[in-house]
Order: sequence, then structure tokens, then C-alpha cells
Amino acid sequence: MHHYFTVPLTLFLLIAVQFSGHAQQNESEKDAFFIRSIYDEALLRGQAYDWLEYLCTDIGPRLSGSPNAAAAVEYVKQVLDTMGMDTVYLQPCLVPHWDRGEAEQVRIVNSEKMGTVELKGLSLGNSLGTGSMGITAEVIEVQSLKEVDDLGPAQIAGKIVFYNRPLDKTKLNTFSAYGGAVDQRGLGAAQAAKHGAVAVLVRSMTTRDDDVPHTGSLIYQEGVEPIPAIAISTNDANLLSRLSKEEVVKVFMRNTSRMLSPKISYNVVGEITGSKYPDEILLVGGHLDSWDVGQGAHDDGAGCVQAMDVVHVLRSLNYRPQRTLRCVLFMNEENGQGGALAYRDSSFANNEYHLGAIESDRGGFTPRGFTCDADNSVFEGKFKKMAPWIDLLSPYGLEFKKGGSGADISRLKPQKGMLFGFEPDSQRYFDYHHTPIDTFDAVNERELELGSAAMTSLIFLLDKYGLE
Amino acid sequence: MHHYFTVPLTLFLLIAVQFSGHAQQNESEKDAFFIRSIYDEALLRGQAYDWLEYLCTDIGPRLSGSPNAAAAVEYVKQVLDTMGMDTVYLQPCLVPHWDRGEAEQVRIVNSEKMGTVELKGLSLGNSLGTGSMGITAEVIEVQSLKEVDDLGPAQIAGKIVFYNRPLDKTKLNTFSAYGGAVDQRGLGAAQAAKHGAVAVLVRSMTTRDDDVPHTGSLIYQEGVEPIPAIAISTNDANLLSRLSKEEVVKVFMRNTSRMLSPKISYNVVGEITGSKYPDEILLVGGHLDSWDVGQGAHDDGAGCVQAMDVVHVLRSLNYRPQRTLRCVLFMNEENGQGGALAYRDSSFANNEYHLGAIESDRGGFTPRGFTCDADNSVFEGKFKKMAPWIDLLSPYGLEFKKGGSGADISRLKPQKGMLFGFEPDSQRYFDYHHTPIDTFDAVNERELELGSAAMTSLIFLLDKYGLE
Repeated sequence: MHHYFTVPLTLFLLIAVQFSGHAQQNESEKDAFFIRSIYDEALLRGQAYDWLEYLCTDIGPRLSGSPNAAAAVEYVKQVLDTMGMDTVYLQPCLVPHWDRGEAEQVRIVNSEKMGTVELKGLSLGNSLGTGSMGITAEVIEVQSLKEVDDLGPAQIAGKIVFYNRPLDKTKLNTFSAYGGAVDQRGLGAAQAAKHGAVAVLVRSMTTRDDDVPHTGSLIYQEGVEPIPAIAISTNDANLLSRLSKEEVVKVFMRNTSRMLSPKISYNVVGEITGSKYPDEILLVGGHLDSWDVGQGAHDDGAGCVQAMDVVHVLRSLNYRPQRTLRCVLFMNEENGQGGALAYRDSSFANNEYHLGAIESDRGGFTPRGFTCDADNSVFEGKFKKMAPWIDLLSPYGLEFKKGGSGADISRLKPQKGMLFGFEPDSQRYFDYHHTPIDTFDAVNERELELGSAAMTSLIFLLDKYGLE
Repeated sequence: MHHYFTVPLTLFLLIAVQFSGHAQQNESEKDAFFIRSIYDEALLRGQAYDWLEYLCTDIGPRLSGSPNAAAAVEYVKQVLDTMGMDTVYLQPCLVPHWDRGEAEQVRIVNSEKMGTVELKGLSLGNSLGTGSMGITAEVIEVQSLKEVDDLGPAQIAGKIVFYNRPLDKTKLNTFSAYGGAVDQRGLGAAQAAKHGAVAVLVRSMTTRDDDVPHTGSLIYQEGVEPIPAIAISTNDANLLSRLSKEEVVKVFMRNTSRMLSPKISYNVVGEITGSKYPDEILLVGGHLDSWDVGQGAHDDGAGCVQAMDVVHVLRSLNYRPQRTLRCVLFMNEENGQGGALAYRDSSFANNEYHLGAIESDRGGFTPRGFTCDADNSVFEGKFKKMAPWIDLLSPYGLEFKKGGSGADISRLKPQKGMLFGFEPDSQRYFDYHHTPIDTFDAVNERELELGSAAMTSLIFLLDKYGLE
């Protein structure tokens, strides 16, 4: 346990000049200077990109319960252990263990116009399998959950329901487009099963027209038979839709996905105890698990290594936090949030107060700012308190706005601190989200590092000024 | 020549509702509505991405004087011809015709520590060749043009001067980093030749550490012997620098680049005559030529197709400009600006007035706004006039700031209109700039389309309100 880090020489000289030449220098200039040094450190000597390369290319995809997820837990614990924090520990949590099984098959069978057509599909996460012989049935296209209710068993029973409502491309923020369509993926199978459907196909949740299927979790409903669900690429969804307007289309689908027994896994937590206000916790975090395809680079390797780099950058600048700084790499955000639940339970059991928490889970793209969320009773007061910080952050293209924080930290809201969602440029995110192409090379080093710097800067301000 | 375009039904209904339900609706609401319809059109039915695919993958790189450049002229003229403009024409210009020749060779020769090491190099544009047997000489590393003067002929003569000052990664805007280093590429060969150097190696102009060499133009100086110049990748520059600190390093370099006779080429110009103020010209443009490696996707296929899409989007929305709208695809921005000079000469000869001109030549990334430049005598007045537009543009992430416009339009400044540089996010631009990896797949469809929409929105406001 040591906090006596060396100060880089140039920084030392600058600080010396600062204090000798400007005895009257105000706090805002000092803050601007420190934030500038945060950016310099992240851009010149940040570690996020190297750590991400290891997570993505040496370890690979990290689905909860998998050996890779365990390897990722071990790796980031080792990295945090090198940082001279006061404590680094594993926080146990129970996670589902889903297995995709063999490569999915989705095939239009004996179309009059097109013969046999293979479609690119990926089982939705948590989906059960079709049985080893697969399922062949007539396809019925719908645009919404409600339409399934409207059609009812007479139209739905025995069929494969094909959810095909696209993301709205005119939304400037692609997360809004995603939010407007994702009910089909999450709830579509249960809804269709209620009316006797035998399986579900879902248009992939992306703003692109391409050949890449996107997985992601579904939720079955108690008392409703679980039926298999596979996402198909948007190009294939367009093809299937066109064809099914011209003729009765039958599809063969086969997957061997299954849910195994839950497993014990871990959140990885590193902590520096606050020198002055140890009971006021500042959290930075991302989630360590990913889907089992691709490398989980943007989702959410990027968020993990950025959160870790917050600690690294502050350490390199010899910054000793007044408040307790906690870096949390959550397990199982994707399909159960076992890690978030364990963290919440522990935090409330210990009567903790998270003054501020930042989650990075929207990709490693150029930073735009932070969405801010808090209990209604405290939001306005805390939000106003941050207003003067804008002058310090806007030179880096950052802004604060009202909005949700993130799946792993939002349950801390009753503690009445401020919850932040780190917000990067959203245009490319759903090109990669939950796909085989969410790989290391899709992340740009500078963009990633600017995110580390943005998060570090906000942590610095929260630590220095608090929110009371 | 026809301007009777059909209005999409949904837009027609919205307009009908707008006029019937809100007789009192103010101009600002109408403007917001129209700008929203511009974005919808660009995101849902924009043509930029398809055109860019053709330019990049069917035509390919488009160096001035090459058959591909001629094919690109023909292609965009054909596209503009389909748009019902009042006139589409080719404007002749004289362009240099440089030829890279055979694949470059750059090799560390018989290093004591490392033996023979191949380096990844690309001749700088306009460079002459080494002669067919190549050049072998001792390397001397320098950080600046001035250092070459300081060292003088005693140190420089007979050697290969290696310019190795990196781009400053701490600059938030990568164009600032580029601007701080590019004198080495542009003027380094002439400077070294003055002191008797036999050739020049230049560290590639990129913020990345990678294996990709970046070409780009150099300028020889009258009365100074032209010596060959090759850019090497930043990884190779780092290697060469390390090695030359430990031993005397000799490099063999060979290129067969040469300057051929100038050729006639063309700017492509499409124009819609203003219905009310035909003498006030609004220009949107990019440059059609590119370097001879890669596909010129971000530089500047993106700018060309965005400028063309401004016309397409306004046409689709049945918008008839009051002022003259001119779409100009310039030739030869990269190595001579023959197109820009021809355009300027013609414009001044005809006593034209460009009320506003927008150049897109900083890549097809997510839009951030526009840099604004005008003659000092008029800048403040015109800039103030635009201030109310910010409320209309900031919902789309756009802002105005003072700054240069672009190489192809900046010569119009004496006409005392406002010159705009379209400004996208800059973080990734110098990953691709002037390289073999500036290809179609590096451009994101949504980001490209948002740029078309941003430019169209500004043209709409300039056309509706002018700048007086």
C-alpha cells in the first residue's frame, strides 16, 4: 500500500511555475490545468488500449459462466493489483450459464421464387434450442408485440413469428432508435408463445442494412412455454419480408442453445480509501462479461479499461482522492445482472453512500458528455452544483444532460447520489453491438483514451467539490 | 430543365397540418420543421453512400491526370445530370500529372544490431525518383526544418535527412496536430537539398503508431535541386530513430516516381439558378481527385458525395432556392490545386459574388459544425447574423466557430462572403489520410449522411436569410 508516486518532471516544473508565478491564481485555473494534465496523461501514457487488446485478443469473448469470463476476472484483478490501491477484491455473484451450442441454421425452405435460401442467424441469449431435428413452420411477419395479440392464436399458433420492426434511422441518438425496437428481442418470444407460436425470428437490432446478425438477451415469462428465438441480419430480414408478401414462406430453423446450471462468478473491485471523506464513494465501472461472439470490444471491454485507466491516470498524476474511489468491473450485465445485484445488495447492507457513480457502457467512441440521473428529491440541487464545471469540460467537447445512467449502477439511486452514464458519439455503436464484428480493431485508440480522460476529469471534480 | 418535383406524401400531410393548424406559427418553428425533414431525407433516402461506393470501389483512387480521375469526372457529371439542375458543365483546368512508378524500397542496410530491415515507405507526391539504382547513404535524424539549417552542409551534405518530429497527440483536434508537423513533409526535401542532402525520409503524418505509410504532397523550391522524398510508417520511424541513436545507420532507398507533362482535367459544376437573387451564389463542394493509393474515401470522396447530396436532398424536398446554388467537385486539390485556381479565375473574371461557400474536406465522420472565415471587414457582421441559427442547428450537434474554410474555396475570400469548412469529428481522420487504407469500408453510412444533412441545413438557412 503506497501512495508516494513520482511526479513527471514536466508536470512538476509546470506546477512550480504555476505556484511561483501566480500566487493569486484562482481555483478554476488550477482545475483547468489539472484537467489538461489528465488529458495529456491519458493520450500519451494511457493504458486502456493495451489492456483492451489483451481482453479482446488474448482472452476473447467473455460470456458469464464461461472459462473466458473467469480468465478476464483474473486478468483485471492482476492489473488492479499493480496500481497500489488500498484494496482489490473479488465480489462473488451468481450468474446464469447459457451455452449457444452448435452453429445456428435458418433456411427458407423451397420457396417458389427463390428455392432454398440460407439466412444468417444467431440465437438470442438465454434462448432454448429447437431440438436436434430443428423446426420447420410457416412464417408470419409482425411489426410489434401488440400485433401478435391482435392476430391471436388463429393466426399465430403453429407458426414462426417474425418480428421485423426496424430501428428508426431518423433518431439522431441511436440508443433512442434501439430503445424503440428492442422489446421485440426481449419479450417477443414470450408474447408469441402465449398464442401458440413454435419459434421466433427477430430482425437484428441495428441501424445498418447488412449481413451481420446481432444476439442479445430475451426474457421468458413464468407460466409461458419457452420457445426458441433466433435473430437474423437486417438484409436477411428484408429478404424474408419481401418474399413473405409474395408467397407463403416456410423456414427451417435449428439451434442447440441451452441454459446450464448457474455458476459463481465475480465482480472485480479496486478501492482507494478517501483521505478526508472515506464514506463518500465515487464509482467508475463497466462490465467485464460480453456476448459469446466477437470480442466484446466496444461492449464493454472499452468501458472496463476506461474505468481502470481512471485509476491509472490519477495515480500517474500523484492525485490522492479525498473521497473513496472505487473501480468496479461488473459481471453478467448482458444476461441477468447477477453482478449488479450482488453489488447493490452488499452496498445497501453496508449502508453505503455513492456520492457519484459513472458507468461506461455505450462504446469506446469520441466522448460527448454524461447523462445524469438522481432521485427526484435531489436531482435539481446536485445538477445545479455541477453547472460551473461545464466551463472546464466543454473545451473537451463534454456536456451534462438529464438521462439514464446504466444497468449496473442504476439500482444505487435510492442512495440519492448522482448517477452518470458516460456518453460517447452513438452513430457506430449498433454496427457492432452483440455481434461477431465487435472486435478490438473496431476501437480507435484516441477515442478510447479521450473517454478515460473525460471520466477521470469528472471524478476529479466530484472528488474535489462533492455535490452538496 | 424541370423543377416540378413530387413531395413525399408524409411530408405533404405534415406541411398541410402545419399550415392549417398553426397559422400563427413563427418562422423559427417552420425552419426547425424543414431542417428536421432535411435530416429525415438524408438518413432515409440519401444517396451519398451509394455514390461513394461507386467512386471508391468501381473507380478507385483518382490522382489528377490519371484515367481514374477522368472516369470520376464523367461519373459525377452523369449523376448531376439526373438532378434536374439548370446547368451542369465541366470547367477545364490544367493539372500536374505525377506518377508514383514502381513500388518503393526503403531498407536499413547492414545494421550491426539488426542486419537488414525493410521499412514501409511511400513516395511523397510530386517527388522525383532516386534513379533506377537507388541511393544508399547515411541517415541523419532531425526534428525540424530549422535544425537542418543549424546543422548545415557539414552535417547534412551527402546524407539522407530523416524528419521525425511526431504529431502532438495531446491536441484535441487532430488537424492542429497535423498543422504542427506537416512542414516537414511539404518543405523538408527543399530544405535538406539546400544543404546538400541526397534524399529525405519523412515520418508519416498520423496520430497513430502503426505500419501504414502516408503520402502527401511536397513542394520543391526554384533554384534548389529536387531530391527524392519517401514517407515511412510511424512504427518504422520509431525503429529507425532508436537504431540511429545506437549506431551509424545507412539506408537504401529506391523510387521511380516522376512528373509527366501537365494534363487538361476538369472541375464538375452543377447549378440551380436562384429564383430571386440569382447573383448571390451559394457553393457546396469537395474535391474529386485523391492520392493514388487506397480509394480516397474520406479524402475526399466523402466531401464530394455530401455536396452532391445537398442538391439531391433539397430536390427531394421540392425546395427551390432563391439564391443560386452551385455544387462544385474540384479537381487537383491534392497536388497543385489547378481546379481551385481555374474556378477562382473564372469567378473573378465574371465578377461573381459567393455569399456563402461550404467545403467538405475533413472526412465523412459525425458532424460537429462549421469553421467560419471571411474578410476581416465583414466577418463580425456576418457571423452575428448567423447567431440565431444556432438554436436550429445545435439539436444536431452543430456549432459555428471561427477558423479556416478549405483549400478549394479560400481564394474566394476577396468577394467578402462567408466561407465555411464543414467540421466532423477529427479523431480518426489521420488514421486514413493519404493511405492505402482510406477505403470505402472506413466510412460509416450514418455519419456520412449526417454530414450531408448538416451542409444542406446550412445552405437552407443561407438561402432563406442571406447574410446582410
